[in-house]
Amino acid sequence: MHLWLSLNVSTVEHMSEQKALQHIRQQIDEIDQQIQQLLNQRAEFAQKVAEVKIASGEQVDFYRPEREAMILRKVMERNTGPLPDAEVGRIFREIMSACLAAEKPLQVAYLGPEGSFTQAAALKHFGGSVQLQPVSTIANVFRAVETEYARYGVVPVENSSEGMVSHTLDRFISSPLKINGEVTLRIHHYLLGKTSQLNQIKTVYAHPQALAQCRQWLGDQLPHAELVALDSNSEAARRVAEMGDDVAAIAASTAADIYGLEVIASNIEDEAGNTTRFLVIGTQDVGPSGEDKTALLVSTQNKPGALQSLLKPLADSGISMSRIESRPSRKGMWEYVFFIDIDGHSQSPAVAEALAKLQNEASVFRVLGSYPKAVL
Amino acid sequence: MHLWLSLNVSTVEHMSEQKALQHIRQQIDEIDQQIQQLLNQRAEFAQKVAEVKIASGEQVDFYRPEREAMILRKVMERNTGPLPDAEVGRIFREIMSACLAAEKPLQVAYLGPEGSFTQAAALKHFGGSVQLQPVSTIANVFRAVETEYARYGVVPVENSSEGMVSHTLDRFISSPLKINGEVTLRIHHYLLGKTSQLNQIKTVYAHPQALAQCRQWLGDQLPHAELVALDSNSEAARRVAEMGDDVAAIAASTAADIYGLEVIASNIEDEAGNTTRFLVIGTQDVGPSGEDKTALLVSTQNKPGALQSLLKPLADSGISMSRIESRPSRKGMWEYVFFIDIDGHSQSPAVAEALAKLQNEASVFRVLGSYPKAVL
Repeated sequence: MHLWLSLNVSTVEHMSEQKALQHIRQQIDEIDQQIQQLLNQRAEFAQKVAEVKIASGEQVDFYRPEREAMILRKVMERNTGPLPDAEVGRIFREIMSACLAAEKPLQVAYLGPEGSFTQAAALKHFGGSVQLQPVSTIANVFRAVETEYARYGVVPVENSSEGMVSHTLDRFISSPLKINGEVTLRIHHYLLGKTSQLNQIKTVYAHPQALAQCRQWLGDQLPHAELVALDSNSEAARRVAEMGDDVAAIAASTAADIYGLEVIASNIEDEAGNTTRFLVIGTQDVGPSGEDKTALLVSTQNKPGALQSLLKPLADSGISMSRIESRPSRKGMWEYVFFIDIDGHSQSPAVAEALAKLQNEASVFRVLGSYPKAVL
Repeated sequence: MHLWLSLNVSTVEHMSEQKALQHIRQQIDEIDQQIQQLLNQRAEFAQKVAEVKIASGEQVDFYRPEREAMILRKVMERNTGPLPDAEVGRIFREIMSACLAAEKPLQVAYLGPEGSFTQAAALKHFGGSVQLQPVSTIANVFRAVETEYARYGVVPVENSSEGMVSHTLDRFISSPLKINGEVTLRIHHYLLGKTSQLNQIKTVYAHPQALAQCRQWLGDQLPHAELVALDSNSEAARRVAEMGDDVAAIAASTAADIYGLEVIASNIEDEAGNTTRFLVIGTQDVGPSGEDKTALLVSTQNKPGALQSLLKPLADSGISMSRIESRPSRKGMWEYVFFIDIDGHSQSPAVAEALAKLQNEASVFRVLGSYPKAVL
């Protein structure tokens, strides 16, 4: 296809080592030049997209979550290696981030401080060229986007060590913001204590989810230790800091620093896929990407069987419900609102039809957003 | 050069918006396919480099700091835009990181916890494909590399808010490890307090360097506030947490979380280039990259003028000394060791000659390492 490819990798086999390395490095340099040229051409085309959009006079969203998700999926699907799919996806995330910044720098607020998992999630979703601003509370992330101080916000919504982040869900009850995306992030668990001697540990404190996620490791390494469930892993670390050498906490490695504890063991979670989920909040109506989720906020009248009949349209249409979470509505003593995640985009005919039926049953009904499933 | 380029960006100007966007996106998709193909070809060549090196039977270093620095500089020098040089550099950092991981995953220990600035420095230097391990102390980062638990380590060495990190320098006195690279990271300062009202603040606590770095901002915004110097910015934040509404601290945004303070103002540093410096430590002898630094550890006899005559060979050869730092040697009451950074590589004739003369004057002389100057 390209001229330089005629110098095949196999031709180096009969050369001296120095000459072979020099030859391969020349090839790599030529590849790099081509990649660099293509990157800049891509940025030119991205700027052209911006110009066409601006010329149309409509309100312009340079960042299109559904389009980025489609590109990333395509890249990963057609990948032949030797680079792993995820690595190529990560490189393209950075390429898109840089090209987007060349159109217009994107302002994103996140739950700080700098170094927080939410910052890592924001970087994973938007790439390194985004302009990030740490904000001190979840409510302030919402406010930053509502007041157009930032175009998007990133907040945690499910935390594998602390459970649901109810602040985030509650904010949607009063905020007009929509969900424009999701990010999942792998979280590691650490065993922390005042000693580095694993065999001294008689009691382990942690949130029940963390205990569950490390059950196998605990069973292998500390078969006789007592496991005590607490409200959060941070609470566990705080307690252990006030106790003796024979107790330990499961927590993030940050907690070791904050509470002055030693890391006894790292990455003790049984499943490699232990993840925390974050939401990208914004004001955009995100189009279908082919693999989407829709988040609903609904409420029923307080009578027996109301929830069942509310959910019936979904079941009847075979629409998969990935989670349901109830929260007090704060309006009446016994009224609840439900946060429901379903598979599919609200613009798809099957989902739209089921949602219309569901809306008839509900006393409150809002689509919080349809957005692409996390790709990376 | 390539066929698709005949469809120039200017041809879209007379199309309808939808058709124009579709056309441009097709071009972008074709560019993406070419980039992806080139990325995988690059990874194949990188694997071939590994095979040639392994076949030679010598001890193999797949990661070559000087070569990566040369590639990054070349990429940034030949860049024509519209992507900024630094953005293209960042993308190539990730490409090299992914290709290297396809040869052999690189293990790097850093001063944790996860989310620390040192982690950010390690990612900036090695790219996102590296396998990072947080370690609790600077001494343990050295130990991790000395015991070959990790191939490299990353430790802070100059911190713009806390001054020199003397632990790091002191470790070189007893450790056989070398300096294999440097990383600089931009650090932001935040004004933290119990109020969000700037006009209430009467006193500001911080490390003297932080006060100096924010002097102009403080003069503009808090002309009547008293500025109090403390040992560290963390200490300032801790104190402010125990005091009233009319005091504030300058610190990193992490401190707001740890001490429960509000962010009153963000990025208050006067200079955009406020940076912290980190060292990459390892066992490698890094070759010349064209723009290098050399770190020396020297000691003199304790007599008048000894330091002056020690440094004379450098001055005579016109070799630029970028810093000198003295530390007690811990061997005698009045003995000091000096950490000296000079421009140039120890293998370059001019530097080698000056170092030979310097060695004659010194009672202790060690080259801690020659390494490429930070590129990104």
